Amino acid sequence: MPEYKAPLRDMRFVLNEVLDLDGHYAKLGLEEVNSELLNAFLDEGAKFSENELAPLNRSGDEEGCHFEDGVVTTPKGFKEAYAKYVEGGWPAINGDPEFGGQGLPGSASIAISEMTGTANWSWSMYPGLSHGAVATIEEHGTDQQKNAYLPKLTSGEWTGTMCLTEPHCGSDLGILKTKAEPNADGSYSITGTKIFISAGEHDMAENIVHIVLARLPDAPKGTKGISLFIVPKFLTDGNGGVGERNAVACGSIEHKMGIKASATCVMNFDGATGYLIGPENKGLNCMFTFMNFARLGTAIQGVAHAELGFQGGLAYARERLAMRSLSGPKNPDGPADPIIVHPDVRRMLLTSKAFAEGGRALVYLCAQLGDQVKLARDDAEREQAHDLMALLTPIAKAFVTEVGLEAANHGVQIYGGHGFIREWGMEQNVRDARISTLYEGTTGIQALDLLGRKVMMTQGQALRNFTKIVHKFCEAHGDNGELKELIEPVARYNREWGELTQAIAMQAMQNPDYVGAASVDYLMYSGYVTLAYLWARMAAKAQEQLDAGAGDEDFYKAKISTARFYMKRILPRAAGHKGAIEGGLDCLMELDQEHFAF
Amino acid sequence: MPEYKAPLRDMRFVLNEVLDLDGHYAKLGLEEVNSELLNAFLDEGAKFSENELAPLNRSGDEEGCHFEDGVVTTPKGFKEAYAKYVEGGWPAINGDPEFGGQGLPGSASIAISEMTGTANWSWSMYPGLSHGAVATIEEHGTDQQKNAYLPKLTSGEWTGTMCLTEPHCGSDLGILKTKAEPNADGSYSITGTKIFISAGEHDMAENIVHIVLARLPDAPKGTKGISLFIVPKFLTDGNGGVGERNAVACGSIEHKMGIKASATCVMNFDGATGYLIGPENKGLNCMFTFMNFARLGTAIQGVAHAELGFQGGLAYARERLAMRSLSGPKNPDGPADPIIVHPDVRRMLLTSKAFAEGGRALVYLCAQLGDQVKLARDDAEREQAHDLMALLTPIAKAFVTEVGLEAANHGVQIYGGHGFIREWGMEQNVRDARISTLYEGTTGIQALDLLGRKVMMTQGQALRNFTKIVHKFCEAHGDNGELKELIEPVARYNREWGELTQAIAMQAMQNPDYVGAASVDYLMYSGYVTLAYLWARMAAKAQEQLDAGAGDEDFYKAKISTARFYMKRILPRAAGHKGAIEGGLDCLMELDQEHFAF
Repeated sequence: MPEYKAPLRDMRFVLNEVLDLDGHYAKLGLEEVNSELLNAFLDEGAKFSENELAPLNRSGDEEGCHFEDGVVTTPKGFKEAYAKYVEGGWPAINGDPEFGGQGLPGSASIAISEMTGTANWSWSMYPGLSHGAVATIEEHGTDQQKNAYLPKLTSGEWTGTMCLTEPHCGSDLGILKTKAEPNADGSYSITGTKIFISAGEHDMAENIVHIVLARLPDAPKGTKGISLFIVPKFLTDGNGGVGERNAVACGSIEHKMGIKASATCVMNFDGATGYLIGPENKGLNCMFTFMNFARLGTAIQGVAHAELGFQGGLAYARERLAMRSLSGPKNPDGPADPIIVHPDVRRMLLTSKAFAEGGRALVYLCAQLGDQVKLARDDAEREQAHDLMALLTPIAKAFVTEVGLEAANHGVQIYGGHGFIREWGMEQNVRDARISTLYEGTTGIQALDLLGRKVMMTQGQALRNFTKIVHKFCEAHGDNGELKELIEPVARYNREWGELTQAIAMQAMQNPDYVGAASVDYLMYSGYVTLAYLWARMAAKAQEQLDAGAGDEDFYKAKISTARFYMKRILPRAAGHKGAIEGGLDCLMELDQEHFAF
Repeated sequence: MPEYKAPLRDMRFVLNEVLDLDGHYAKLGLEEVNSELLNAFLDEGAKFSENELAPLNRSGDEEGCHFEDGVVTTPKGFKEAYAKYVEGGWPAINGDPEFGGQGLPGSASIAISEMTGTANWSWSMYPGLSHGAVATIEEHGTDQQKNAYLPKLTSGEWTGTMCLTEPHCGSDLGILKTKAEPNADGSYSITGTKIFISAGEHDMAENIVHIVLARLPDAPKGTKGISLFIVPKFLTDGNGGVGERNAVACGSIEHKMGIKASATCVMNFDGATGYLIGPENKGLNCMFTFMNFARLGTAIQGVAHAELGFQGGLAYARERLAMRSLSGPKNPDGPADPIIVHPDVRRMLLTSKAFAEGGRALVYLCAQLGDQVKLARDDAEREQAHDLMALLTPIAKAFVTEVGLEAANHGVQIYGGHGFIREWGMEQNVRDARISTLYEGTTGIQALDLLGRKVMMTQGQALRNFTKIVHKFCEAHGDNGELKELIEPVARYNREWGELTQAIAMQAMQNPDYVGAASVDYLMYSGYVTLAYLWARMAAKAQEQLDAGAGDEDFYKAKISTARFYMKRILPRAAGHKGAIEGGLDCLMELDQEHFAF
């Protein structure tokens, strides 16, 4: 597989041109942030990702993490790369300036997260998970807690984790069992077992700060009896350093299909000292902010694997010679044509490209909305951004990871049998991608969140807010001759989206299980339409730049061309999902569970 | 993952009830073959697969094959299981009785191949690849060649391979370079490197007989200059035993994503002694018979992984407790409901079940057609079977492996995060499945074969022959009240299939590249419609048995229920593929290959 090249031109197109972050920052009153600063970040981030992280991606997969007596050793070079990352100040980009952070909004670092993640997803999980712990302490911690943990977490000298899942429960946190018993000094004794804790133990940082979901004695059953605790690996010494070792230890690490260089830990809390963060029994509420963040972080993974599949596939498709073009030789002096001349190879490449670039636009848009949720001066604007982000996040998480996995598989497919061989790296891309539709809420869970919570529980309002935006966009650009053929299908599907939603709502009133029956197909349908809107928006911006004579013609024309491909060859898939939804609920439920197999 | 249970009831349903093999054998004059014999085979095959092979599936994956100094060591237990297989007489089922075979037709062993393959695909590749060598020698060998190789290959004491691919060519065999230079004694010296040779070297058999594609001196360029050679690892001693070692050696084995216990070898031929088989320069023609066989063998792999994904997913879905049913608790005394109550989990299970059982019906039907091609007494019948098999084979190979991979992924998805962990075995199922859409001709190659060669080159005749069969079936059963809702969509899509084909043909006349642009979506469309026909046929048979009071009501009702699920929730996907085809060619070709990335 060729070395990863950060797609800087495309990132800048989305950030600076499509999303107009300069205007966005000005509106938010962030005068110190602008595209000049962002561009400098992007260049540095690309260098770091390409030179420090990408070279460790294959070796990290081959070597994996090692576990012995509670100690986790990360693959060769991981620790050193992390030290450089800390030295470069990268962990602090978004942190609170009061604790050493640079205070930049999420949209300013989203492309950096994409680059580090694409270069080496396993590695990026170590700093990536810290963000959740930081965000939780920033938002819900006491001053004392902030002072104790944020400086070192912000600098990256310490890392953090989120400890949610237990052996018997993942999606259904309401049944978790980890106990928190109050101690005389106001702290708590935390006892229980957590699994699937990414970066739960490793050799990169001096201390690891766990945010742990647990139950207080006599807490109400279910999700309303969960509280959050800070449980550091080493207790603090009161002077910003580490003190005594806490009673939390890694019991083992998982042997996984992919992301093998990311340590996935079983964490045993054996009366470990913990500190309540946020109000009692409101732990899940406190998690919600973080969850959107984490889901967006996983959506990036979809972009990452689509991009890698695309880059790898493109390099091979240009080089590998096989067969002649059906419309006549294109490389008459060679023994065969490069496979990029074959329409079906182009179909796979363009599909991956459309998902990588479209997914990027969606994820970056969500990051922009995240800024507004946090920083918009106007209440209405904040609320509007919040609602839109709430709607788009499950789509970004589930749809982008599903199509990212598809694109990773196209990467393998373009290589033929060679795609199955480890040395080419394309199969690793599929193995690494496979987790993305599972963790941080499976596709099924995201789909229920989208259709059940975001759409149905708002009586469709959240969706209408968005389809109105799409509708206005289509009205504004529908008369543009060049764009007409791209706008028309978006407008049509956007209308159909509303109708389909109403039809589902009618059925769901009869039987709430209808929501579950429709959910995943609905999510995929929504994803295809959302990406169609973003592709039309990108094409409109590209056309505007062409009309303005902005230069870079090949880039803008390629954008419009890819948008056309998306509308003509990808968007029609939505019809299949619509048909499946209309197939209804009964045929899913009628078979007795004893009669599935004989 | 639960131990594999061979789905004997379903196998018997397809073989004895749907395909009526008793009637089929009687018609072919095979008086000694009947369902009683088949049933005994199935029972024994199930025991062998469940008890000997399935237990080695995970350990084989973990251990893999080892290579040192040209010697390949298979994982623990593989050699012993193979010895039992030979001892049990399994390799000889289909072999020519003149050389120790039992002379049974392909349909009599197809379920055995499915069982051994599902229990342990990697293991099944060793005997599986032999069949190609045997078929080639049986059909094209001289008497001397047959006498020299067939007895030991038929008994399984020796195994065989097919050596096609070279480092620079796989799909495009026309550019292969391996040379065959004539020796004075009538043999040839074979020189070249072959890659991706499954079972090219191993420790299970005394000798390995390679069938090698190579070029004679001054052979015409391209596919018309390829000849076939027998190149044994050990030359024969003239008395049925092995003599001198030949100059062919394994240079290395590949490190792969899956089927790790199957040795995928680089084979170096260094002036190895080879014997021409079949006429000079007609090697590819001689391969055609074998290729259909090999593609059908790979189609079985789709069924295998769908079945494993389904069985594993079902066991977990019944056991794992998470969340409550949206329509009220189904397990009120437990902490949560088993996840099989959730519609979306059922959707994934039923999808996998529909692909496993539908794929099985398609593959077994192809095996039945294979019998007719070989044995039908009537020329017209033979030709008709041949044409139908030619049409259905690329669909079986590509579509069944694509949906098999999808089902394997559903298996992982049902397990949530646990699906990603090796110990559960579900991720191995995905890794093992991934090769099936690549080897023996990728999905793209099969799609070109289907649309270009089988449909377009017969001016649609081969397709019309099949749609006529489907049409007649629908006419015969459309009035059956119970079946109406299942027959109607089959009839509709069957009509549309013909129309879609005509529309493609019109476009392809303008530009032959249109075939490549439509091919994979056309193949998938064809697969969904073909499986719909088979599901309707299975439902009709089940209804007939119910009407006749044949007992086993739950089984037959489950069949009809699954058919309903297929028509309502799976078949609508065809609309998405139709829409993509109609998106056309231009949007695939307009982007200059230099402008895919910036």
